[in-house]
Amino acid sequence: MDFRPYKHKAQYYETDSMKIVHHSNYIRWMEEARVDFLEQINLGYDVMERAGIISPVLAVECEYKSMTRFAETVVIAVRLTNYTGVRFDVEYEMRDEASGELRAKGRTSHCFLDQNGRPTALKRRNPEWDAILRGAVFEE
Amino acid sequence: MDFRPYKHKAQYYETDSMKIVHHSNYIRWMEEARVDFLEQINLGYDVMERAGIISPVLAVECEYKSMTRFAETVVIAVRLTNYTGVRFDVEYEMRDEASGELRAKGRTSHCFLDQNGRPTALKRRNPEWDAILRGAVFEE
Amino acid sequence: MDFRPYKHKAQYYETDSMKIVHHSNYIRWMEEARVDFLEQINLGYDVMERAGIISPVLAVECEYKSMTRFAETVVIAVRLTNYTGVRFDVEYEMRDEASGELRAKGRTSHCFLDQNGRPTALKRRNPEWDAILRGAVFEE
Amino acid sequence: MDFRPYKHKAQYYETDSMKIVHHSNYIRWMEEARVDFLEQINLGYDVMERAGIISPVLAVECEYKSMTRFAETVVIAVRLTNYTGVRFDVEYEMRDEASGELRAKGRTSHCFLDQNGRPTALKRRNPEWDAILRGAVFEE
Repeated sequence: MDFRPYKHKAQYYETDSMKIVHHSNYIRWMEEARVDFLEQINLGYDVMERAGIISPVLAVECEYKSMTRFAETVVIAVRLTNYTGVRFDVEYEMRDEASGELRAKGRTSHCFLDQNGRPTALKRRNPEWDAILRGAVFEE
Repeated sequence: MDFRPYKHKAQYYETDSMKIVHHSNYIRWMEEARVDFLEQINLGYDVMERAGIISPVLAVECEYKSMTRFAETVVIAVRLTNYTGVRFDVEYEMRDEASGELRAKGRTSHCFLDQNGRPTALKRRNPEWDAILRGAVFEE
Repeated sequence: MDFRPYKHKAQYYETDSMKIVHHSNYIRWMEEARVDFLEQINLGYDVMERAGIISPVLAVECEYKSMTRFAETVVIAVRLTNYTGVRFDVEYEMRDEASGELRAKGRTSHCFLDQNGRPTALKRRNPEWDAILRGAVFEE
Repeated sequence: MDFRPYKHKAQYYETDSMKIVHHSNYIRWMEEARVDFLEQINLGYDVMERAGIISPVLAVECEYKSMTRFAETVVIAVRLTNYTGVRFDVEYEMRDEASGELRAKGRTSHCFLDQNGRPTALKRRNPEWDAILRGAVFEE
């Protein structure tokens, strides 16, 4: 499957005293891109919420390769790199739209929790979603 | 009654490309100071939440008088200036701790909503809180 | 002149415990919309920066009319309502894209500062920009 | 050397729709704690800035172990775990103050840049700081 990359234009309030985007905002951009990716495979937050499932962030990492400045647009490619039925990992490549220069690489890990905050195996609880996620895993 | 002013040290992530604190953060600082004020009169968010009442922001305004820089501490004086039983207004004076210079003046307006999102008159629903708020209104 | 309204899709990180967008974010959305408006009249931040002029926020106000939820798109209409040569005011009307419901109304005031942080009259310093701004003022 | 841990009280605007602190804020808290740690060893941002040195974030990672709720205070222990003369790594352990429960573990990597944005070896440029950092590295 081919997914539409996500675009974010850097806002003024995202910059800091170094006149670059503050590093914490890339973590937020990864969320924006992940939400968009999940919508593309019909697993948007609204769908999950109606099913009483949330998908919290277990871990996040980001390597900063070059600086983003105000008003630059960053293109974020998202890949589901791992899905075990109870956990999944997402990788992100962020590039400057104009130059193609690599801005940052990131990764997040997630699980699924039910309404009582208990870990949930999608395979049993929701085989349809399980199939979607298996099909969406990136393969080189 | 005399209230303890609230202090906030400006964080690096709160600055912007002008090397000053971004103006949107003062709105957040007002919330910090208001939460602290409400705790001082025993009407903290936890107390309200247990009673099933929330107190959303109806309006906000802020005048910026001078700039706050990274690592400066701002002292925020809070005054309950109006309480009608269904609404209340809070005013804020933010000064640099070191110099006493006025940084900003702000104001927020609030109501009370019950669990169904309906406006609630504290006077009927919670006479004890009503008395606390009446007593906390600032009088010159 | 007719201006393209600005659109912002509410992000998950912009929500708070009330499951609505935190009120401070509307202040940031107004900046996004203002930046976009100024670009439309060829007075983007990059143009200003090259000319050594910044345009800080002197005052902000916002009235909240209804709540924005995660993933809703807000359409922001921007109007330059006042321009004196040394100051300008901008008004914002934020509506839910799907329903047209009014979310919030806001206003910001600005001046122009030169590289030394001194107030600057555009009329003398930059007659071309002065003409653009005069022409962009909204008239009923 | 023994360092004072940093404390942060979770703010309402830091929560999200899950009624917990949004994961991106831990990245900001790590910055707060790091700034405080560097001040404790007399290498605050003001000192660095006067010397024309900045210390950007090269990489960040965070593992989330339990959730932080509004108004809870998190105690952040900071350790300089590696310093090579041109790079350093900082580790963070964030615990709930009331219960001692582990909230999150994090790590950031940094380098030093001079005014022209070029990597700088502190050993040559500033032997005094180099000695301070060597002495501050945590040893089990």
